[in-house]
Amino acid sequence: MDTTKKIKVVQLGLGSIGTSCAKVVLNKNGFELVGAVDVAEDKVGTDLGDLLGLNRKLNLEVSADVQKVLAETEPDVVLHTTQSFVDVVFPQLETIIASGTNVVSSTEELLFPQLKYPELTRQLDTLAKKYEVTVLGTGVNPGFVMDTLAITMTSVCTNVRKVTAERYVDASKRQLSLQKKVGTGLTVEEFHNLINAGKLGHIGMKESVALIAYALHWELDTIEESIDPVVAEEDFITPYLKVKKGQVAGIKNVGHGWKDGQEVIALDLRMYVGAQNPHDAITIEGDPPVHLIIKDGIFGDLAAVAMLINVAPIVIAAEPGLKTMADLPIPRAFL
Amino acid sequence: MDTTKKIKVVQLGLGSIGTSCAKVVLNKNGFELVGAVDVAEDKVGTDLGDLLGLNRKLNLEVSADVQKVLAETEPDVVLHTTQSFVDVVFPQLETIIASGTNVVSSTEELLFPQLKYPELTRQLDTLAKKYEVTVLGTGVNPGFVMDTLAITMTSVCTNVRKVTAERYVDASKRQLSLQKKVGTGLTVEEFHNLINAGKLGHIGMKESVALIAYALHWELDTIEESIDPVVAEEDFITPYLKVKKGQVAGIKNVGHGWKDGQEVIALDLRMYVGAQNPHDAITIEGDPPVHLIIKDGIFGDLAAVAMLINVAPIVIAAEPGLKTMADLPIPRAFL
Repeated sequence: MDTTKKIKVVQLGLGSIGTSCAKVVLNKNGFELVGAVDVAEDKVGTDLGDLLGLNRKLNLEVSADVQKVLAETEPDVVLHTTQSFVDVVFPQLETIIASGTNVVSSTEELLFPQLKYPELTRQLDTLAKKYEVTVLGTGVNPGFVMDTLAITMTSVCTNVRKVTAERYVDASKRQLSLQKKVGTGLTVEEFHNLINAGKLGHIGMKESVALIAYALHWELDTIEESIDPVVAEEDFITPYLKVKKGQVAGIKNVGHGWKDGQEVIALDLRMYVGAQNPHDAITIEGDPPVHLIIKDGIFGDLAAVAMLINVAPIVIAAEPGLKTMADLPIPRAFL
Repeated sequence: MDTTKKIKVVQLGLGSIGTSCAKVVLNKNGFELVGAVDVAEDKVGTDLGDLLGLNRKLNLEVSADVQKVLAETEPDVVLHTTQSFVDVVFPQLETIIASGTNVVSSTEELLFPQLKYPELTRQLDTLAKKYEVTVLGTGVNPGFVMDTLAITMTSVCTNVRKVTAERYVDASKRQLSLQKKVGTGLTVEEFHNLINAGKLGHIGMKESVALIAYALHWELDTIEESIDPVVAEEDFITPYLKVKKGQVAGIKNVGHGWKDGQEVIALDLRMYVGAQNPHDAITIEGDPPVHLIIKDGIFGDLAAVAMLINVAPIVIAAEPGLKTMADLPIPRAFL
């Protein structure tokens, strides 16, 4: 590829991940940030430099009108960081695709949308091919640590019996948004109520299981998921929150894939304040076996942003259509 | 892809890796072994079942005539496991490509042939496109542990300053061919003589460095390589060889990539009998940093075979041309 020509980016969604994305894009040689979109009233009309807390104007005004921004700036790719659910973001994706722009999205369910939305998936793929653009959902988790990397590690095996991944995150080291997401400081009852209302927890666990099965050509009988609170065994204070003994420290979320009556995929995610020995690990029960450990775990806040940006040139170069991480060339850092 | 249709394979080269490949292909549901080729007089004309030490005939006669076998069997892919050097295997590759067959090769220099053979690389790419086939060089090392996996791990970083990989192999656990390759049991003088004659050592270290740089769009100033003996500090007996104190236990082979006066890639491979704490490790000095360890290291003898076979469906599905691991979808185990 021609690396002398900068990739033109529009950042759509200026929440926690989106603002981080914008900052990183601004600092990278390979990219040019040409537009910023968000619908929040307090953000629209501000200069992006002010919104990002930079000490300079960027002469880039946050707009609520994505169609106008895309038409005026003609970007190579939109970094889409708004919501977690495919049916919610579907109209947003339609608009971007119909403008003829490639999309890299942090929407967790878009990692493997086929799982819950086969019809919307078909529509997105058809639309992407019609407008000759590529659409991808990714991130660090879901998107890499517990799925793409696990898939990659099976490549050295002549035979794979089971894929397991675990990610133990000390939530006290992460952003407030993550601590809230995992229920830190709630009572156990509040935790269960919010989980049942779909307002809490990690999104994308079943999609990670499904992506692994898809990549390995495994037809699963079922995908199951369990979500439980991790209860604090002592008081704990984070920079943002206090947790008392007996309150929720965080979450334990496990995904299981079953094939021919056997559990063949097991993904164990624990994110709570005070987690001891945080790490990521992947074990492939196969020939030969593989046991990989990432010391301290991959730091999620920044890694998710990195992945979204790094795959952009790969998505731009790919064949049109709705893709998964298993369909594209190996991810790697970009300039 | 249609996984109900078996992939037809011809195995070309029936040495240590080639015979292992053939055995694994025979045991996998996704593949059908339709031909076996080798030029060694003691192998030509034998039944492959006998050659592989199976207790049954396969009714597959080892042939020295690759053109004839390819014309008669029309395979989807050739697993090419003959020699290490691109200029040596070039005529073999020409023959396979001209038959219209995809190639996955264990030729170490083919991991990144552009480094030492830009003109032959151009010719192979042109020929592959003419005959609409895909050609790939891969393996576990070179091919995965110290290059493809290291590249993949940079994907979670917004910025990468240095890529390091180390692979410490206890050669006493490996095949005799590996122990001979790393000089086990030689005197230090014999070791240096054979290294200088190009008859000993790991092939592909500079290619691994070059592949990483290519994937990261880094223009290196230079790629350097050092090769030293690891001298036995005590007597050691392997199932195949005896090593006396003061003799060569194995090899230390380090590849260095320099950019703008800084060492940005460092790959440290040690393969010797009696190596303590064998492991693979990858460290990305970046934002965030990544430190990955594979306990005991990936078992190379089987992993190399697995990689050659597992990437076959990816190579078959890829666009025509001479490709690298950094150009193709993420590797994964195949049925």
